[in-house]
Amino acid sequence: MDLINLRRDVHAHPEPAFCELRTAALVLSHLRELPVTVRTGAMRLEGIPAYPDAVTLEHFAGLAVGSGADEADVAKLAAEGTAIVAELSGDRPGPTWALRFDMDALPVTEASDGTHFPAAQGFRSSYEGFMHACGHDGHVAIGLALARRLADRDFPGTVRFLFQPAEEGGRGARAMLGADVVEGVDRFAAVHLGLDLPTGVVAAGITGIFATTKMRARFTGTASHAAAAPQDGRNALLAAATAVLGIHGLPRFSTADTRVNVGTLRADGNVNIVPALAELTCEARSKDGAVNADLTERVKQVLRGAALAQGVEVDIEETGGSTSLDCDGELLDAVLAAAGATGHEAVRLHEMGGSDDASLFAEAVQRAGGQATYMVVGGGNPAPHHNPHFDVDEAALPVAVDVLEALVRRGAAATDR
Amino acid sequence: MDLINLRRDVHAHPEPAFCELRTAALVLSHLRELPVTVRTGAMRLEGIPAYPDAVTLEHFAGLAVGSGADEADVAKLAAEGTAIVAELSGDRPGPTWALRFDMDALPVTEASDGTHFPAAQGFRSSYEGFMHACGHDGHVAIGLALARRLADRDFPGTVRFLFQPAEEGGRGARAMLGADVVEGVDRFAAVHLGLDLPTGVVAAGITGIFATTKMRARFTGTASHAAAAPQDGRNALLAAATAVLGIHGLPRFSTADTRVNVGTLRADGNVNIVPALAELTCEARSKDGAVNADLTERVKQVLRGAALAQGVEVDIEETGGSTSLDCDGELLDAVLAAAGATGHEAVRLHEMGGSDDASLFAEAVQRAGGQATYMVVGGGNPAPHHNPHFDVDEAALPVAVDVLEALVRRGAAATDR
Amino acid sequence: MDLINLRRDVHAHPEPAFCELRTAALVLSHLRELPVTVRTGAMRLEGIPAYPDAVTLEHFAGLAVGSGADEADVAKLAAEGTAIVAELSGDRPGPTWALRFDMDALPVTEASDGTHFPAAQGFRSSYEGFMHACGHDGHVAIGLALARRLADRDFPGTVRFLFQPAEEGGRGARAMLGADVVEGVDRFAAVHLGLDLPTGVVAAGITGIFATTKMRARFTGTASHAAAAPQDGRNALLAAATAVLGIHGLPRFSTADTRVNVGTLRADGNVNIVPALAELTCEARSKDGAVNADLTERVKQVLRGAALAQGVEVDIEETGGSTSLDCDGELLDAVLAAAGATGHEAVRLHEMGGSDDASLFAEAVQRAGGQATYMVVGGGNPAPHHNPHFDVDEAALPVAVDVLEALVRRGAAATDR
Amino acid sequence: MDLINLRRDVHAHPEPAFCELRTAALVLSHLRELPVTVRTGAMRLEGIPAYPDAVTLEHFAGLAVGSGADEADVAKLAAEGTAIVAELSGDRPGPTWALRFDMDALPVTEASDGTHFPAAQGFRSSYEGFMHACGHDGHVAIGLALARRLADRDFPGTVRFLFQPAEEGGRGARAMLGADVVEGVDRFAAVHLGLDLPTGVVAAGITGIFATTKMRARFTGTASHAAAAPQDGRNALLAAATAVLGIHGLPRFSTADTRVNVGTLRADGNVNIVPALAELTCEARSKDGAVNADLTERVKQVLRGAALAQGVEVDIEETGGSTSLDCDGELLDAVLAAAGATGHEAVRLHEMGGSDDASLFAEAVQRAGGQATYMVVGGGNPAPHHNPHFDVDEAALPVAVDVLEALVRRGAAATDR
Repeated sequence: MDLINLRRDVHAHPEPAFCELRTAALVLSHLRELPVTVRTGAMRLEGIPAYPDAVTLEHFAGLAVGSGADEADVAKLAAEGTAIVAELSGDRPGPTWALRFDMDALPVTEASDGTHFPAAQGFRSSYEGFMHACGHDGHVAIGLALARRLADRDFPGTVRFLFQPAEEGGRGARAMLGADVVEGVDRFAAVHLGLDLPTGVVAAGITGIFATTKMRARFTGTASHAAAAPQDGRNALLAAATAVLGIHGLPRFSTADTRVNVGTLRADGNVNIVPALAELTCEARSKDGAVNADLTERVKQVLRGAALAQGVEVDIEETGGSTSLDCDGELLDAVLAAAGATGHEAVRLHEMGGSDDASLFAEAVQRAGGQATYMVVGGGNPAPHHNPHFDVDEAALPVAVDVLEALVRRGAAATDR
Repeated sequence: MDLINLRRDVHAHPEPAFCELRTAALVLSHLRELPVTVRTGAMRLEGIPAYPDAVTLEHFAGLAVGSGADEADVAKLAAEGTAIVAELSGDRPGPTWALRFDMDALPVTEASDGTHFPAAQGFRSSYEGFMHACGHDGHVAIGLALARRLADRDFPGTVRFLFQPAEEGGRGARAMLGADVVEGVDRFAAVHLGLDLPTGVVAAGITGIFATTKMRARFTGTASHAAAAPQDGRNALLAAATAVLGIHGLPRFSTADTRVNVGTLRADGNVNIVPALAELTCEARSKDGAVNADLTERVKQVLRGAALAQGVEVDIEETGGSTSLDCDGELLDAVLAAAGATGHEAVRLHEMGGSDDASLFAEAVQRAGGQATYMVVGGGNPAPHHNPHFDVDEAALPVAVDVLEALVRRGAAATDR
Repeated sequence: MDLINLRRDVHAHPEPAFCELRTAALVLSHLRELPVTVRTGAMRLEGIPAYPDAVTLEHFAGLAVGSGADEADVAKLAAEGTAIVAELSGDRPGPTWALRFDMDALPVTEASDGTHFPAAQGFRSSYEGFMHACGHDGHVAIGLALARRLADRDFPGTVRFLFQPAEEGGRGARAMLGADVVEGVDRFAAVHLGLDLPTGVVAAGITGIFATTKMRARFTGTASHAAAAPQDGRNALLAAATAVLGIHGLPRFSTADTRVNVGTLRADGNVNIVPALAELTCEARSKDGAVNADLTERVKQVLRGAALAQGVEVDIEETGGSTSLDCDGELLDAVLAAAGATGHEAVRLHEMGGSDDASLFAEAVQRAGGQATYMVVGGGNPAPHHNPHFDVDEAALPVAVDVLEALVRRGAAATDR
Repeated sequence: MDLINLRRDVHAHPEPAFCELRTAALVLSHLRELPVTVRTGAMRLEGIPAYPDAVTLEHFAGLAVGSGADEADVAKLAAEGTAIVAELSGDRPGPTWALRFDMDALPVTEASDGTHFPAAQGFRSSYEGFMHACGHDGHVAIGLALARRLADRDFPGTVRFLFQPAEEGGRGARAMLGADVVEGVDRFAAVHLGLDLPTGVVAAGITGIFATTKMRARFTGTASHAAAAPQDGRNALLAAATAVLGIHGLPRFSTADTRVNVGTLRADGNVNIVPALAELTCEARSKDGAVNADLTERVKQVLRGAALAQGVEVDIEETGGSTSLDCDGELLDAVLAAAGATGHEAVRLHEMGGSDDASLFAEAVQRAGGQATYMVVGGGNPAPHHNPHFDVDEAALPVAVDVLEALVRRGAAATDR
């Protein structure tokens, strides 16, 4: 299956965080044809917040098998987790690379009108309510195509391919780090398609990646009949609503750009019952890690204050997060050189207004003395990331493969040797 | 099947509003053995707010058939609606009665510990997440037992049994009135078990029933990435949360007791997306109908103001409601006399802190010159209505049948003739 | 000075809580002409919340002297407090009465248009921003007129006249009780003009008086420049605003009528400064004392939760309060008899939708075995209490004096002896 | 009076916006000794929002005269406004300069402890509750000292000194522009002391000045007795509190730094009255003018939505505002050269996290083809601007005079000619 068809196949079968069973099985099936060492279950399952329950995993396992995935692989992936690490050694000494390719999709209902390329071309999401609205379908395809190209082993060093689950929500990288997947790595790179850069333009690195903390708060009060005994209730929804306003009202910081959001809130029950349960998910971000930590603490304080005011309990869980990221200059030079060598337009840095838990891999590598960068390859997005009309110009895919290939083959050299 | 077993059978198979397929099929099967005229589909399906969709009906139809209901009956009930009217004529002239028996259960997860009688006795809900937590299981059993007793036709006039769907949320009576089910009725009575009266004590009528309006509000804004472009979002959840606080903050009235509640709120999506959709359900109540109307309008104004502030749209729908209810003195006397004649303890009036759309039947009958009452038979509730531990002392059931039987056989006379 | 002119003189010089210097000096000057024992400073100054500061007292002292009050009296009253108790003994044994007459005015700007009787007749408030908008001007006049009538001492027992400061806000009675002013009292009565009863109609007692708690909350955060360092601020106003919504959102009680209100909020400063200080006053009420206590605690919890959420401090002070009140049946009969004997129309009980700290006197007397009531004399109010157009039909004043006089002279007998 | 004493004199007599009567009179008295043309009343009084009323002006006029100001000058300034323009011509042709010196103080209570230099040195504010907490006292002194130095007329061109009222709140520059005070101006400069730059360091210009809009919102509802008839009230405070939360909850923008603040809120009245009036002041800011306009509109929408929800009226007034500001490169060079020529340390640009309506003068001059800059002279602030402990190292004052003098004498040349 070629690069484009691979991407379309993944696109048509979007799976949410940690449920990437079909996608990971597809990765496995491709890797089996290559001279690589494969490690499945390359993640620590313990302690992952909001990990999908058995029913959900079973549901996606059924879909995966129903759409052609190998049943044994799917069962194994469902049991061990979907993270896969594949290692490919070059034929001569050189640096150890880790390249990150994320696999998860989003709970977004994909556009179905004719202006939307995947719909017009017949590869729109077949899992209603889910969508590859962030380009990870392309990332998976790029990773596999790159592995295939490098299968000739004509490069210095070693390349470790990290096929990562759950980038959205910031939980996958942390789980994989729990399985020591970047031990011994000298150079780390993640690549992202799109991000409002023109098609085919390569940014050697990014600036302004947000450190972020994802949280879930569960308010537990006491139900009561809203007419017969409202005073016996302790209103979890009222606490949650107060928290929504409080979180959005947190101050801007003059010292660093910040963001807050409450993305979901659910209080089920009945119209005539004082709600005893309400659950929300929210996030803090800042381009400065310390400010993000401060802001995160303030979010929690708002949640606690809202609970106190209503006499309800609140349980706050950090469900994910990632740090900010400084790209290393030497590696930036190497990427620019690789882009030049393959004839692609490149810029040194691109401002990024989001977060990616690739920053955790980068941080781990840098802490151990290695270098890291986060590349972007423009994809001429017709609509913003996470939008039902999001798409990536497929011409961007081979560009990403070219530059990564050159980077590895050149041993990360910034100049021809 | 006797009264108690009938109640337990219904209790074990609780079905929510308008999904009472197994319950109604059970009613039909019992009625077929009696000399009654049966009218199925005794309701107007058009214009019912939030009527269950085909998937939901199919789901409960499957459960019903799976637990023994007649497949053809279930299909017919799913197509026509679950309201059933059965008419039984006495052997001599007399008043036309309408007696209301409501059938729906609640979205409450029933307690499973040994202190809970239905759990200990093995007739706990088998439909997880749903529960007869308001005594309607007993009402259905009482209605059928009464019909069986009166099958000798030794009474004056006619009795119309109204087996009503969707009392909770206040939609069923309105739908049945759309099918003219109380035309020609002289006397209306509804009976409710429980309501904090001691077991077996009969209240001839109630005071303080709340007029109520149930509403659903859908806020529609614009999604955007919470980090990359928060300013492009129009935050539906923020509007909904503001409305929650605003609704609860509406003033108390010195002129009549009032209630407000926001029972549910749901904004799905993703933690890093500005929520474009949020939906809540809420209610207003007052013991005075005009105050309820005023309060309802204020709830809507709060919803509209919250939407305006956030630049989102709000669509407000009245999904149900009922009026307050004044019981007729003559009928109260007749019930007291019937209780006396059957040896049961009785009180004239009982304060009720809730709503029941039986009030709509009562209002229609009274407007046409008839009389109405709303009786209560105490059931020694171990826990409040709508609570997971709610239960009714089964000794209350025959009391209710006795009194209704005497009432009908005596032709609503307050004194022996 | 006759009853009407006395009332108008007091009306034209309205003084707020604890600043009733001119009014009390006027009371003193009248009492000096009568055979009474006078006790000034009849209150405990220690521990009164929000007692006016020296500057404020000086301000009103200046106004009092400037409008004719005796300078020495004013100085004494400013130093000791304005509460005055005058005792008048009858010429034969009998019960000891305590009759309460409150003196304070409100911070309301009086209407000045010709439709407002005091304005048209030239006795509108001469202290701009303050107004006798609750009838206390009439109460003072009634008390003095009654003392004058009873100066013949032709009655059994003893009458203690309680001229009370600071009824509004519920602080004066508590302060006077701290000086043991109802020790040895057998019968307590307070009279209030108006309350929506027709002119001249006497209600022997009231029902439905609210127990209430008045509170003041001061939020203290940290100021910072709203542009240069918003993150350094801890926003006291945001906390206060959150509390306003939370307090209004507290549940209604099915067990007793309740009220909540936030009457004032002040956060001064500058538009570009994060507010470090915000102060609000609020109240809870319920017709049931225990419910009021519960509601008061919930108000405080809301205040604390709002402070916690914003990381600010909150200092909550109970600034006043009063209990509910049950009138004694024997005394009700006596009032009805007194009204009958003087030819005035009377009803047994009148529903009252407010609070009065006379309830604290009543409670103290009842606890010691005495009896208490709270009478109302209708005054045909053209506008609600506390409204700029509030007024009392002056024809009501002699009715009140008549009934109280008869009550005392008859020794509280319900029948002629 | 020398530079330092002049500053201390102004510091000790701080006057708020448009009330700078003593300060302006002092300016006049100094200008009279110099060969300048003086224009008083250099502002358009019509249409200034929240201009002080006659009572306030009279109050500050009294204080001014009481502390030594000329009575006739004060009266004239009170009548015409406090803006003063003085023009001084050089002895040879050259550019026309406009230099802005703002005069107003803030409603901040100055620190009185010994760590605060003005308190320790005896020149703390003598107008309790007001304080020069932003350095304008120094600006006035610098302007007068500069005028005195340039009185030898040994410079090319003309210098127009703009002594401006009401910089805080952003109203003074607009009023002066209404009197055409920058007509014919080629070069505009404003100087500000402090702003967290080390003492004596000169920043030739600033970046990141915020465009801002100041607003005042008055909510008008209906008062009612909070116990007797809460339902008759329309709660202005509840609307205002809702708006406070809504304004703080407005989204951050990814396109430009923003700020929002609600600086003051006042709802006076009584604890037992539903508040009929509430007034708040708030501001929007952004480093991008268009974003500020967008944000301002959203603030207004929040205010309107909050009013709608509570059924109250809201009147929104823009009380001030200013634009962002781009300094001209040529003028920046000239300032750097002037600093170099006088031996002072200089930097090209300084990031400023605030607003200043000098931007309106700059914009007007630039629109007419001239150049503008906004200089900063570091003052080693011991506490942030607007803080009770704010102060400026007096060593900064002569630096500012030196650089401005050199700038003018050199004809704004960036190189020595």
